[in-house]
Amino acid sequence: MVRLVPGSPVRQLYVIGIGAGDPEQVTVQAIRALNAVDVFFVLDKGAAKDDLVALRAEICRRYVTERPYRIVEIADPDRDRSVLTGRQYNAAVQDWHEARVGAIEAAMLAELAPGENPGFLVWGDPALYDSIIRIVDRLRARGALDFDYQVIPGISSVQQLAAAHRIVLNRIGEPIHITTGRRLRSGLPAGQDNVVVMLDSDLACRDLTEAGLEIYWGAYLGSPEQILVHGLLADVIDEIAGRRAAARERIGWIMDTYLIRRPV
Amino acid sequence: MVRLVPGSPVRQLYVIGIGAGDPEQVTVQAIRALNAVDVFFVLDKGAAKDDLVALRAEICRRYVTERPYRIVEIADPDRDRSVLTGRQYNAAVQDWHEARVGAIEAAMLAELAPGENPGFLVWGDPALYDSIIRIVDRLRARGALDFDYQVIPGISSVQQLAAAHRIVLNRIGEPIHITTGRRLRSGLPAGQDNVVVMLDSDLACRDLTEAGLEIYWGAYLGSPEQILVHGLLADVIDEIAGRRAAARERIGWIMDTYLIRRPV
Repeated sequence: MVRLVPGSPVRQLYVIGIGAGDPEQVTVQAIRALNAVDVFFVLDKGAAKDDLVALRAEICRRYVTERPYRIVEIADPDRDRSVLTGRQYNAAVQDWHEARVGAIEAAMLAELAPGENPGFLVWGDPALYDSIIRIVDRLRARGALDFDYQVIPGISSVQQLAAAHRIVLNRIGEPIHITTGRRLRSGLPAGQDNVVVMLDSDLACRDLTEAGLEIYWGAYLGSPEQILVHGLLADVIDEIAGRRAAARERIGWIMDTYLIRRPV
Repeated sequence: MVRLVPGSPVRQLYVIGIGAGDPEQVTVQAIRALNAVDVFFVLDKGAAKDDLVALRAEICRRYVTERPYRIVEIADPDRDRSVLTGRQYNAAVQDWHEARVGAIEAAMLAELAPGENPGFLVWGDPALYDSIIRIVDRLRARGALDFDYQVIPGISSVQQLAAAHRIVLNRIGEPIHITTGRRLRSGLPAGQDNVVVMLDSDLACRDLTEAGLEIYWGAYLGSPEQILVHGLLADVIDEIAGRRAAARERIGWIMDTYLIRRPV
């Protein structure tokens, strides 16, 4: 349950999962939380930025009916993407997070009137490969802003992938493994038969040569542009690569995710 | 997007994820789908049955505003729980699913008037350790009922666990492993540092002896009875076991899930 604390002396920050892209995949709880926020802080960047900002604004327009609100865009600090492995990778991500925390803190101090509640809208679910919760924890630790916060779960792209393909992620009794494109470059994890791949900017599954692998692929999940492909990886990988390239060319960006399944 | 096909000659069946227990964690899409259903078929059983049936009825009462509906309870066939491993386990689950398919088909043939749409409300997300999608596929394959179907994702107990603890399931760049209590009995999977355990009726993590393991545990997630415990597994396992036993005694049933994390 969302604990709304309008007269509280403690500022409430809301981290709100808003689904993978379909405004109808917002929960009633998220709508209540949206209506408790005074200022939405937005950090999108990159090729998808304009579309994502527009979709967030659409979600606010559609569901925020109870009070006025403002949307504040924060210039997202650059991230060092040159290091891709181990400690160096973690250090680069940590540096980037610390820079984001500083930028967010400055924006909040500048924009929030006393008693106003800040909010962050998170694509998918804040619990899955998203950095906002960690950033909010650091923001609190710095102590310049006094606030408590709540997290509202959201439908993730992985769930929309499964729903659109009408599949269960696991076969009966089997575990599910969720990983990143970066990790898939070193191969399909041993002993994992249901592998969900996220954050794969480069279709790393193209290099998997194991026989019998099945893929359930989806792009722009939950949006009107949604594309789905399913088949044996070897049979459909060229189709996926082709449709992926064409869509990216037409729309200017792409977000996709997929399930790879080993044969029984 | 839910494709509502009211005048369609083809019956539409809806598999609707309704969240882990908080009626506010239902999505707008799920509410639209709820309002397209004429007959909800319900298969709960066991100690939690009465509470779960009541909560489904509450969700229907709260959100179905556009048309009359009926709720039909189907007696769920017994499942052979004596075999816990390998092929025998799979065969027992398969038999049980086939028996369920027969019971559901009979109920649908008896209850559905021409043109009426059936629906199934699924706790959590239909894509995660749930059997309804497989049952619906078999129901279609049998051919006695002609229908098409759609799956609506829902917030899972795992997502509510993470949101309530205000954590990200993965550490930066790390994979997430989702498994069952049954599998955890053979130990924490090698190389998996973020392990989510579901369907664990017996707190299998009690037998994990590795040093430094951290646990984020939650029961009755999303409900007013929600209980959360977090700490080093060795420090809090007795507290979890105690609160678990007391709650089960008081409420008559328990559902819980947890994340086990290896130290860096």
